[in-house]
Amino acid sequence: MITNMPDNQITLYIIKALKESKRKEFDAILDELQPYDVARIYGELPEKHKKRFLLYLNIDMLADLIEELSKTEQLDVLNRLGIERSGEVLDEMDNDDLASLLDDLSPEKITQLLSGMKKEESKAVQDIMNYPPETAGRLMTNRFVWIRDYYTVKEAVTKLKSFTDYAETINYLYVIDQYRKLVGVVSYRDILMAEADAVVRNIMYERVISVSVDTDQEEVAMLIQRYDFMAIPAVNEENVLMGIITVDDIIDVVIQEANEDIEKLSASGKSIDFETRAYVAAYRRLPWLILLLLIGILSGSIISTYQETLKEIVALAFFIPMISGMTGNTGTQSLAVVVRGLVSNDINKRVITKLVLRELGVGVIIGITCGILISLIAFIWQGNLMIGLVVGMSLLLTLIIGTLAGTVIPLILYRLQIDPAIASGPLITTLNDIFSLLTYFGIATLFLHHIQ
Amino acid sequence: MITNMPDNQITLYIIKALKESKRKEFDAILDELQPYDVARIYGELPEKHKKRFLLYLNIDMLADLIEELSKTEQLDVLNRLGIERSGEVLDEMDNDDLASLLDDLSPEKITQLLSGMKKEESKAVQDIMNYPPETAGRLMTNRFVWIRDYYTVKEAVTKLKSFTDYAETINYLYVIDQYRKLVGVVSYRDILMAEADAVVRNIMYERVISVSVDTDQEEVAMLIQRYDFMAIPAVNEENVLMGIITVDDIIDVVIQEANEDIEKLSASGKSIDFETRAYVAAYRRLPWLILLLLIGILSGSIISTYQETLKEIVALAFFIPMISGMTGNTGTQSLAVVVRGLVSNDINKRVITKLVLRELGVGVIIGITCGILISLIAFIWQGNLMIGLVVGMSLLLTLIIGTLAGTVIPLILYRLQIDPAIASGPLITTLNDIFSLLTYFGIATLFLHHIQ
Repeated sequence: MITNMPDNQITLYIIKALKESKRKEFDAILDELQPYDVARIYGELPEKHKKRFLLYLNIDMLADLIEELSKTEQLDVLNRLGIERSGEVLDEMDNDDLASLLDDLSPEKITQLLSGMKKEESKAVQDIMNYPPETAGRLMTNRFVWIRDYYTVKEAVTKLKSFTDYAETINYLYVIDQYRKLVGVVSYRDILMAEADAVVRNIMYERVISVSVDTDQEEVAMLIQRYDFMAIPAVNEENVLMGIITVDDIIDVVIQEANEDIEKLSASGKSIDFETRAYVAAYRRLPWLILLLLIGILSGSIISTYQETLKEIVALAFFIPMISGMTGNTGTQSLAVVVRGLVSNDINKRVITKLVLRELGVGVIIGITCGILISLIAFIWQGNLMIGLVVGMSLLLTLIIGTLAGTVIPLILYRLQIDPAIASGPLITTLNDIFSLLTYFGIATLFLHHIQ
Repeated sequence: MITNMPDNQITLYIIKALKESKRKEFDAILDELQPYDVARIYGELPEKHKKRFLLYLNIDMLADLIEELSKTEQLDVLNRLGIERSGEVLDEMDNDDLASLLDDLSPEKITQLLSGMKKEESKAVQDIMNYPPETAGRLMTNRFVWIRDYYTVKEAVTKLKSFTDYAETINYLYVIDQYRKLVGVVSYRDILMAEADAVVRNIMYERVISVSVDTDQEEVAMLIQRYDFMAIPAVNEENVLMGIITVDDIIDVVIQEANEDIEKLSASGKSIDFETRAYVAAYRRLPWLILLLLIGILSGSIISTYQETLKEIVALAFFIPMISGMTGNTGTQSLAVVVRGLVSNDINKRVITKLVLRELGVGVIIGITCGILISLIAFIWQGNLMIGLVVGMSLLLTLIIGTLAGTVIPLILYRLQIDPAIASGPLITTLNDIFSLLTYFGIATLFLHHIQ
């Protein structure tokens, strides 16, 4: 009925069904909707219809709905449901989603929410919450089908059928032995092709790619991307299968990690999005701005030590923004290449040497090009050959050093296990600023003395 | 056998099998490996073993291997295979991967490669290549199972079994009517649960979320992410099912788009990675650097118009790097928030108004904080209240304007359908540089006159 209906008309239809208490029509519409759409419609509903809307949804749908909402909305919905029904909904939610819902809540609130849940489900969630943030353990779900290695294909199919709900996400089955250790994987396809009485152990792949529960989420994402998997199993140190991580969570990780890299590279402060309040956003950005301010003062004090030179030739001041701007920019260009390259490359000595030499080459090429160009412009503009030469030579040098700094510093930090994106920005800016001004005024002063 | 073997030992094992022509052992090892690993091992093989390695692989494995290689390697392998075998391999490859392999080749080379292929396969690839780059049409594959709406569940299962190869990637079946129009979708789970003689039309979901073949890949990614799909169908303007796009391709899109945003924001030049040669990288970065150089000259000429002021108070020069650096940085901070926000938010008037007001708030807060701070520092350092006030007031103003420029300009460009990331960087830098220097020297000159 609603197949080709535009979104806002569906909402109107639902409101009508709610107003007239037409449960059947309501169910028929909801049956065709995706969780994301249900959440969108819930958000658009007038306040007075929300209660009945939640009442009409079954537990499965409520769990789906809640997984799509923001944290505040989630808590609001759970409150409206009452302790008993919210317990059932929480039982039904994916563990990883529930864990991130509970993440920043007060201990009392957590206890209250968990109290309505089944024992085993609440334990499973608490287990997940014990893993550090941004690890495989935090992303994994226990909603998946595992089979024993001694099952026959027929037994595997029977198990699959009785867990169809879980079986929807991916299409392979992980195989465990009597100690719950991960020993293999079979695809639905293998199951379809095999004889009914074949033993799983004999048809499974034994070389399972898995991650440890404390593997960093960025590495999990890299593996899933590399192997084009729909899911990857997570094991503990004894190779016991603890859960699986599905590709839909990994897409979110990839976006989150890219955003984090951008935030750090642009020093825009951690996790500022469209919803963040002004004072929070300002508070998050200020540390970096104040640091920049102090760096600015440092640059200023370098200039001040050369004020005699500057007094003699005021024209030197005209080129300050250009030189520091360009040095800073080459540094950032190299930094961005390195930071993003680290996402998808295996790093070894050969790769590093090649990269550093390449960037040195880049620095020399752009240094010579821009150096010659600015020499000519400065000479024509100021009618003074010496100024042209000073500016050009300074730019040549600072561009080479800027490029190298932008390459080498993040690589060193990476080796020291410090996130290159966050640490390099300020470091490179500072060093490049200081270095470019010292070079520029140093060369200028030298040449002035030479002339005199 | 190789289940728990480290990677380099597997390579040695394979070399041994190749040396001793032990085909069976070779097959046993290969059977347990993922395509990514096969490609890695192929890359590590000494030249003399590559020929036999390729000879030992069957067509399926060769297709898998090629899909993991870089373009140059792909062409090299195809060359080694000879026209007939390479034709078979190309038949077996995913259409979208093949299309991107052929993308930049000469027409003669394309004809040569396609000539070895089956007619229908080579036509399918040529069809895909007719879609513009970065659209759904380019990403989609025709390797999937569709069923007719009048099939029974039993017929659907039979079809599924005869196409197990295709059935591995996802776990829903798209349903088409007699005109090949997309009319529904059923999950494997629905099929498992239903009676064997139930008709697909009656158990399918009718509200299929699909994309058009010319939908931008970024939008496809947003839909897949939003709905947590494993795949999404692509249709033409008559709603005829043309192909499906799977989540593993979408992860690559997400990474590619994030990298593009970062490249643009850091102006690091398009597609420079660890493999790019120095002169190519320099060539790609130079346009932006030369633009920056000209902007720098413009800034310099602004300073030069105020050289009388500067001569009187040389100390004003000390604060030039700080003011232009900080204004530029606040602009970039806002820009990054907007550019990444556009990836995952629906944009409307309400959102925009809220965002602009928020950033105005941020600008005021950081402006006041940093303004007061620098006033004090400048006063203490220079022992001159007037300089402190001039610098502080300038910074207050430029930070507010910098923040607003970084927010409003990308939004305007987005409205004009220009990519905000690429166009805003240079624009914001220029405007902020010019504006900050004008403000700074303007205020300074004004106050100087006032004193005199």
